[in-house]
Amino acid sequence: MRMVDIIQKKKHGEILAENEINFVVNGYVNEEIPDYQMSAFLMAVYFKGMNKREIADLTLAFVDSGDKNDLSNIQGIKVDKHSSGGVGDKLSLVIIPLVASVGIPVAKMSGRGLGHTGGTIDKLESIEGFKTVLDRETFVNNVNTHKMAIVGQSANLTPADKKIYALRDVTATVDSIPLIASSIMSKKIASGADCIVLDVKVGSGAFMKTVDEAIELAKTMVEIGKSLNRKTIAVVTDMSQPLGHEVGNANEVKEAIEILKGNGAEDETTIALTLASYMVVLGGAYKDFSTAYDELSKIIKSGAAIKKFKELVQIQGGNPELVDNPNMLPQSKYHLEIKASESGYVSAIDAEKIGITAMLLGAGRKKKEDTIDFSAGVTMVKKVGDNVKAGDVLCILHTNIEEQQEAGELSKKAYSFTDMEPKSLRYIYEVIQ
Amino acid sequence: MRMVDIIQKKKHGEILAENEINFVVNGYVNEEIPDYQMSAFLMAVYFKGMNKREIADLTLAFVDSGDKNDLSNIQGIKVDKHSSGGVGDKLSLVIIPLVASVGIPVAKMSGRGLGHTGGTIDKLESIEGFKTVLDRETFVNNVNTHKMAIVGQSANLTPADKKIYALRDVTATVDSIPLIASSIMSKKIASGADCIVLDVKVGSGAFMKTVDEAIELAKTMVEIGKSLNRKTIAVVTDMSQPLGHEVGNANEVKEAIEILKGNGAEDETTIALTLASYMVVLGGAYKDFSTAYDELSKIIKSGAAIKKFKELVQIQGGNPELVDNPNMLPQSKYHLEIKASESGYVSAIDAEKIGITAMLLGAGRKKKEDTIDFSAGVTMVKKVGDNVKAGDVLCILHTNIEEQQEAGELSKKAYSFTDMEPKSLRYIYEVIQ
Repeated sequence: MRMVDIIQKKKHGEILAENEINFVVNGYVNEEIPDYQMSAFLMAVYFKGMNKREIADLTLAFVDSGDKNDLSNIQGIKVDKHSSGGVGDKLSLVIIPLVASVGIPVAKMSGRGLGHTGGTIDKLESIEGFKTVLDRETFVNNVNTHKMAIVGQSANLTPADKKIYALRDVTATVDSIPLIASSIMSKKIASGADCIVLDVKVGSGAFMKTVDEAIELAKTMVEIGKSLNRKTIAVVTDMSQPLGHEVGNANEVKEAIEILKGNGAEDETTIALTLASYMVVLGGAYKDFSTAYDELSKIIKSGAAIKKFKELVQIQGGNPELVDNPNMLPQSKYHLEIKASESGYVSAIDAEKIGITAMLLGAGRKKKEDTIDFSAGVTMVKKVGDNVKAGDVLCILHTNIEEQQEAGELSKKAYSFTDMEPKSLRYIYEVIQ
Repeated sequence: MRMVDIIQKKKHGEILAENEINFVVNGYVNEEIPDYQMSAFLMAVYFKGMNKREIADLTLAFVDSGDKNDLSNIQGIKVDKHSSGGVGDKLSLVIIPLVASVGIPVAKMSGRGLGHTGGTIDKLESIEGFKTVLDRETFVNNVNTHKMAIVGQSANLTPADKKIYALRDVTATVDSIPLIASSIMSKKIASGADCIVLDVKVGSGAFMKTVDEAIELAKTMVEIGKSLNRKTIAVVTDMSQPLGHEVGNANEVKEAIEILKGNGAEDETTIALTLASYMVVLGGAYKDFSTAYDELSKIIKSGAAIKKFKELVQIQGGNPELVDNPNMLPQSKYHLEIKASESGYVSAIDAEKIGITAMLLGAGRKKKEDTIDFSAGVTMVKKVGDNVKAGDVLCILHTNIEEQQEAGELSKKAYSFTDMEPKSLRYIYEVIQ
């Protein structure tokens, strides 16, 4: 088998056999196939795509390239959730206790933020004492006893995907649906999940800029799940503005607490309940989505959800009191109000620009090595559809950095206005299952 | 400027600016752009193409990457000829003396053969004493005095193209018309020609397998010529069987002598006269093609053409007597007749298979370092359209190698038969100017 022939085949739109896909992935990991052949291959995949079977084979080759988490000591059906990355996306903080409340085990491995998107692990670390590294035994015991635990990704999962992703990043081959889908699904499968609920974001702050693209990605990932015997549901959700009102770390934890108390913004509450409902249905707690949705709504109202979050903070080493007194979370020195210079309705908020604003304020990382200021972030006072008068506060920047001009200008640029009241946004575009 | 952004642009089918193309070519030659970005870029070019202006800029960037031959000391309009590579293509041996006969200077630089195609320099070296390395002064003097000289390529012409070609070869990005066209044209322009006649081969023995592809390549190269102020004419000619009756080196010289004496096969004579006629028209010897064709035909008949070839052999150090006594050329030990096992009309002869047969017999190189047996080759006794009875000799293999089985089988496989008399082949499909 020769790599040049496989590139040629894909270039002509032919279907690759399983052994050819394994040859490509293993050869690249073992450094038998050079970067320059891999990048030509990836570009051919960008143009010619892959069919269901090829994408499933690619996913499995990624999974087989590294370690696999063994969750067999955890009782019950393990349901995992993945978000394709957003701004102000604190949904995992809400969903973990919500799903665990009904007895479905959540053995969560999460990542850190990079660039304009945040990471669940960073957000939780803004809680003093919260441990995101647990030994295996504690992790498994916590899930079996409390139905929940969360740690940072540590194992050597899907190294082939990591190596290929780094190459895609510098060869303009990131935005290929077969490659994105196999990359995401391989990580979830290697993480050991039985069932997977995917939150596919669409809009200015997301990878997928159009609903059609997002639906295609969602369908592709659900197909991979089917092919590899993991029940998978994908929900296409809006990211044409940041989610909720808080973007950052400590302030996102605060907002998550409000959602769990029943005081959340409508968009976040709806999406969190939707994703959690599909998870508990897959986990076998309820028969259908609407029953699950109603029951989980009741759990929030009853106070059981926020109680479960307190429990999560406690078992992972944090002080549960902060749930009743969120001002115990880190606070920044400066709070800069960004005011509107025109009147009108907010028609759009570029989520990527707000994400970068938060990064500039200290809430995110430009490079992997950067440290995070947990107290930094942005409060979105005005959101899409709001009527604004010149001089009204659009958003508030929280930071410990004195120089705030660039962030201030960028956050202002994120807002677009219109004279006519825009039609209300949909939170959820499509559910693929 | 970042290479990843340029790849992205081309991937989306956008037009690259001149400075972007220069950035790509120079950056790659200077090793600032790595192979893996270049190969992704080349694959994007394969899928999205380039417009006239981009292709001309790419060609010029290749030319500027290396030395340029200075032919300013040669009087007259320098017309060069290029063939896109064929099997049994000894046309340069015929055309050089033919064009020089009418006073148009031919300052020819030629290559060696590799794989299934032969090279003019190898063919001439089968003439004992024929020097294919001349110092600059002798080369220029010979052209000014005798209107002709031929040497092997020695200068550092178009190194960017050489480096990129090596990468294309291993990343399945050879068959891209903008890349093929700029590669060929950059070499001709760096060689110093004022005008260029291109012989674009089409068929089983050529890069271009269909007439449409060949015409597209021809048009692209003529456009490059126009953009860069080199008058260029491209002739699309048949390579659906080897050209003439001889494939090899010494035997091709013999056949070239026969053509120049007026005893050549019809296909070769027609194509040689056509290419030479366009050359002398571009060189200003005659006003129009048909006058040139008639005059050159007369020059062959009169004996002036073969006399000029004798002169070429003499001034480059060979013994001109071999023109009258071609048996002075190297002779092989074995002559193996390949016989038909069925009856019918020859419908096709796979030129690539015959080229590889010749290589196996010793007439060509598998690798650049291989040496050549000048006496080895194939005589095509039967050609397309011939009626054959089982047992008739199809071709004769000349070699000094005892083991001839593989070559024998391959040459036989090259022949296809049909019951009905096939319609006669065209030698010339199209002329683009």
